[in-house]
Amino acid sequence: MVSSFVLSRVGIQGVKRPVTINRGNRSIVLVPSFDISVNLPAEQKGSHMSRHVEVIHRAVDQAIVGDNDSVEKLVERVAEELLKSHEYATYADVNLHADYFMKKRSPDGRDVTENYKIFAEAKIERDGGIPWRSIGIEVAGMSACPCAMENVRVLLKDDLKNRGFSDEAIGILDEIPVPTHNQKNRAFIEVGMNGEMDIEAEDLIKLVEDNLSSPTYEILKRKGEADLVLNAHMHPKFVEDIVRDIIDAFLDRYRELPDNATLHVRSISEESIHKHDAFAERITTLGEVREATMYERD
Amino acid sequence: MVSSFVLSRVGIQGVKRPVTINRGNRSIVLVPSFDISVNLPAEQKGSHMSRHVEVIHRAVDQAIVGDNDSVEKLVERVAEELLKSHEYATYADVNLHADYFMKKRSPDGRDVTENYKIFAEAKIERDGGIPWRSIGIEVAGMSACPCAMENVRVLLKDDLKNRGFSDEAIGILDEIPVPTHNQKNRAFIEVGMNGEMDIEAEDLIKLVEDNLSSPTYEILKRKGEADLVLNAHMHPKFVEDIVRDIIDAFLDRYRELPDNATLHVRSISEESIHKHDAFAERITTLGEVREATMYERD
Amino acid sequence: MVSSFVLSRVGIQGVKRPVTINRGNRSIVLVPSFDISVNLPAEQKGSHMSRHVEVIHRAVDQAIVGDNDSVEKLVERVAEELLKSHEYATYADVNLHADYFMKKRSPDGRDVTENYKIFAEAKIERDGGIPWRSIGIEVAGMSACPCAMENVRVLLKDDLKNRGFSDEAIGILDEIPVPTHNQKNRAFIEVGMNGEMDIEAEDLIKLVEDNLSSPTYEILKRKGEADLVLNAHMHPKFVEDIVRDIIDAFLDRYRELPDNATLHVRSISEESIHKHDAFAERITTLGEVREATMYERD
Amino acid sequence: MVSSFVLSRVGIQGVKRPVTINRGNRSIVLVPSFDISVNLPAEQKGSHMSRHVEVIHRAVDQAIVGDNDSVEKLVERVAEELLKSHEYATYADVNLHADYFMKKRSPDGRDVTENYKIFAEAKIERDGGIPWRSIGIEVAGMSACPCAMENVRVLLKDDLKNRGFSDEAIGILDEIPVPTHNQKNRAFIEVGMNGEMDIEAEDLIKLVEDNLSSPTYEILKRKGEADLVLNAHMHPKFVEDIVRDIIDAFLDRYRELPDNATLHVRSISEESIHKHDAFAERITTLGEVREATMYERD
Repeated sequence: MVSSFVLSRVGIQGVKRPVTINRGNRSIVLVPSFDISVNLPAEQKGSHMSRHVEVIHRAVDQAIVGDNDSVEKLVERVAEELLKSHEYATYADVNLHADYFMKKRSPDGRDVTENYKIFAEAKIERDGGIPWRSIGIEVAGMSACPCAMENVRVLLKDDLKNRGFSDEAIGILDEIPVPTHNQKNRAFIEVGMNGEMDIEAEDLIKLVEDNLSSPTYEILKRKGEADLVLNAHMHPKFVEDIVRDIIDAFLDRYRELPDNATLHVRSISEESIHKHDAFAERITTLGEVREATMYERD
Repeated sequence: MVSSFVLSRVGIQGVKRPVTINRGNRSIVLVPSFDISVNLPAEQKGSHMSRHVEVIHRAVDQAIVGDNDSVEKLVERVAEELLKSHEYATYADVNLHADYFMKKRSPDGRDVTENYKIFAEAKIERDGGIPWRSIGIEVAGMSACPCAMENVRVLLKDDLKNRGFSDEAIGILDEIPVPTHNQKNRAFIEVGMNGEMDIEAEDLIKLVEDNLSSPTYEILKRKGEADLVLNAHMHPKFVEDIVRDIIDAFLDRYRELPDNATLHVRSISEESIHKHDAFAERITTLGEVREATMYERD
Repeated sequence: MVSSFVLSRVGIQGVKRPVTINRGNRSIVLVPSFDISVNLPAEQKGSHMSRHVEVIHRAVDQAIVGDNDSVEKLVERVAEELLKSHEYATYADVNLHADYFMKKRSPDGRDVTENYKIFAEAKIERDGGIPWRSIGIEVAGMSACPCAMENVRVLLKDDLKNRGFSDEAIGILDEIPVPTHNQKNRAFIEVGMNGEMDIEAEDLIKLVEDNLSSPTYEILKRKGEADLVLNAHMHPKFVEDIVRDIIDAFLDRYRELPDNATLHVRSISEESIHKHDAFAERITTLGEVREATMYERD
Repeated sequence: MVSSFVLSRVGIQGVKRPVTINRGNRSIVLVPSFDISVNLPAEQKGSHMSRHVEVIHRAVDQAIVGDNDSVEKLVERVAEELLKSHEYATYADVNLHADYFMKKRSPDGRDVTENYKIFAEAKIERDGGIPWRSIGIEVAGMSACPCAMENVRVLLKDDLKNRGFSDEAIGILDEIPVPTHNQKNRAFIEVGMNGEMDIEAEDLIKLVEDNLSSPTYEILKRKGEADLVLNAHMHPKFVEDIVRDIIDAFLDRYRELPDNATLHVRSISEESIHKHDAFAERITTLGEVREATMYERD
């Protein structure tokens, strides 16, 4: 009987460690949760698991005290340490996710600290050329439904007509946004490629927030709250609109990235009128979406 | 050195078992998760833990095959079995929570199965008189903010005035609901008392749904969706309004319940304009809220 | 500016519905959570989202009332309904997960109901030939570490030697399992292929439980508890051993399955000596692992 | 009909903000999640909710930039700000929980960073005298079952006897720990009182770890792993033993605390032989447990 196969990966998950990222003149403390693994060749027995764990932790420590100016470089260094310490492994995979905080100016003009999620992953092969890295962010913003808004507009007009209002008065409903259902929308983007990426997490956050019905804020005075609600209702969007618009904006903003760079975009709408969530998602390469764009432009 | 104290409780948690409740002419299958415990006197060593666990399971089984017509009776029977089997214990506490499904008619007239949560607890004392039971439910409905709606109305009027519309035309904004932020609202009610309660879980669900900005539905055609959105905007409510209105409606509906019955009401609004949730909560007795009502009536 | 791309998928997630599966002469009630989606062509605007949701629910209902004898067939029927109702979509993806309960005989000879998780997925293409289906299960069992056991044996022998015990007496440590760390191990297997599968979820559960250090039981008397502990210590295994042994057993048991059937096996050890989890995982095809087996046999 | 009651509390939950605690010569960055609320008098309408939220955030900011040398003082300052800003409220409640990291020396002599959870709460009344504060920690350690160990010992002796080993050789089983089930144990302690507490979170962590079967470590070489396993098997404990021993140790260590200080201790064992968890819990005052101790000493 045969007793061993080439395992895809073996490792540990849920290791939390505080990490300092020195980004320009800022120093950011993150508390990421790491999942890290290497492949295990068929001929390799499992007896190095305790060393495996020990080494992984050391790798995290060495990477942490080093010169880290991005989470992508951090996970890549951890992956490099893994391959150094596991001479039998030919592949290492390291990813992390963490809360991320960014200062923003709210609609009513105050500086607030907003909460996001950040993701990074590195996949490296021994003697395998350029490492693959990704960086991603998740934003809790707002989506407002365009379909319900139009149907509500019809209902309101009918009602006003029945109540005897003039056509001129009723016509004002075409000049303003009317009620629709809106809700928290969790929008996610992750970009991956072989080699150095020059992508700022905070630029991704802004790009995503610009393509929701509206970004959200932790502190809003009444005027700011009303401005945000109006802004969202001026930009009603389905989940699939949000995904498409984020991809559009990304292509426009990052023209220099190679065709084989990967793009993962997802929008989850925590529907206020239903008990379930709605979602749209696209996993693709920049080449594929650029080609689709060319085709449509013809 | 002293080595033992009267422990509050010792038990097991997260035991899942399918249960059939025979309610009138209906048979409902639930998959509850149970947490069950007894007190452990100071002189009792921990050595009966394996028996403890074994007995708890048997108690669940015996209660499950018995004649169960309510989740409150189910947890009470489990608690009784616990005291029978743990002769040293003087107190038993059993609670469960489960997904609950109820058929409803949607705004556009179709029968849909909607998803809720149900909760039940029993606390009994050996020779301690009447057991205490509770039943609770949680509803995912919708809340729409009254404050933002008024501020949006002002902004819209100012904008239309600046664009040169007549006062008569602008006045129509006082005749209709205008946009506001709305979102999923998780509303919870739990009633507890000594002795038999004659409270239907489905009555509690209806009572809570009637006091949200709007109930939600899993299936909605366009007209039904617009009706729901309008309904919610005709009943804008803060989280504290929802809690107060649920208590009002409960007092009115269950006049026969004793003053020492307990009431726990909570409303959590998953704010669409913020990253955090807003909540309001009241834990009280019927006597206390009835007295507050009397006082205010003077 | 271009405004649309071929989205991978759009749909809804987290829809819970009770489902009855009629399997042989048994009737099983499950409460699955469904995630369902279709692709959305570039030229398709998002305006059918409300219909999309409505249709998805109807599809679930139709499939539920139909003749369901497996969760794989259930998800396939839901996927078929999706394509019927979304004439623009060419692809549908439906998956569910649910608690699953199975009667087992415990080591001390009693019938107990044990709790597992079940997974199923269907992916179908319009005019795309045979649908792809998968079925999976997750078991909470026990793993005991072989490495720590050997190191503990050495420590115990040294200690006994220092205390003056005879070599003969000390030699008894080679006859028995000695302490090691053990813990909950969450083991998962999922098999996928195009076309009909003749795989029983309960056979997968047994196959996985047979390849852990030990299965676990909700009710154990003292003797049964000791038997289980000894059994686990007679079969100490690393996470990677568990994955390899499950694959071995699967290949042996399901020889008739085609080479392009997919296999996903994962073992997560909730380490009792660490704060993190250890894991091993393999995602492969039967052809790939069969070839690796042939190669090693040479 | 009456429409308002004295609500218990209204507020926001799930607000995450990075916080720096300056403790002696160390600077610790935490990323807590805050839940904060005030009471809302019956005569107070809900119309200040937007201000409520705004003010809460400002309170957090002011407290964060201030001189914080403990999480207890942080939550108390946030509560004070709440009462300043909500002139109608007479009560404020603020609590936080966060990951906490502490350097420890592992059994094989290396410095490792270990992961815990920290909790703090403040409850203050306007003109209500001394604020109430609490601090708590949670440790993921290890518990080993004493009952299964004794039953395994009996089984092993019987087996060796059947295999013809001498009584002398078999007797060695009384000299060593034999296998038992062990698992992750989540142990929690929280101390609360009116006024200043001089309790270090790290002292609580050590106190709890000293009363588990064994603390756990993120990095362990083989020797260290075996030492830890042996240590745990030399101190087998039920969940109720862990709760009792933590209370004993706490009383002994903090003799100066007042009788009306509250103590909440809980131990959850993620059973490796079952699918459920076992737990024991005690919520009491120091006075009550001290009296029980006196009584038993007589």
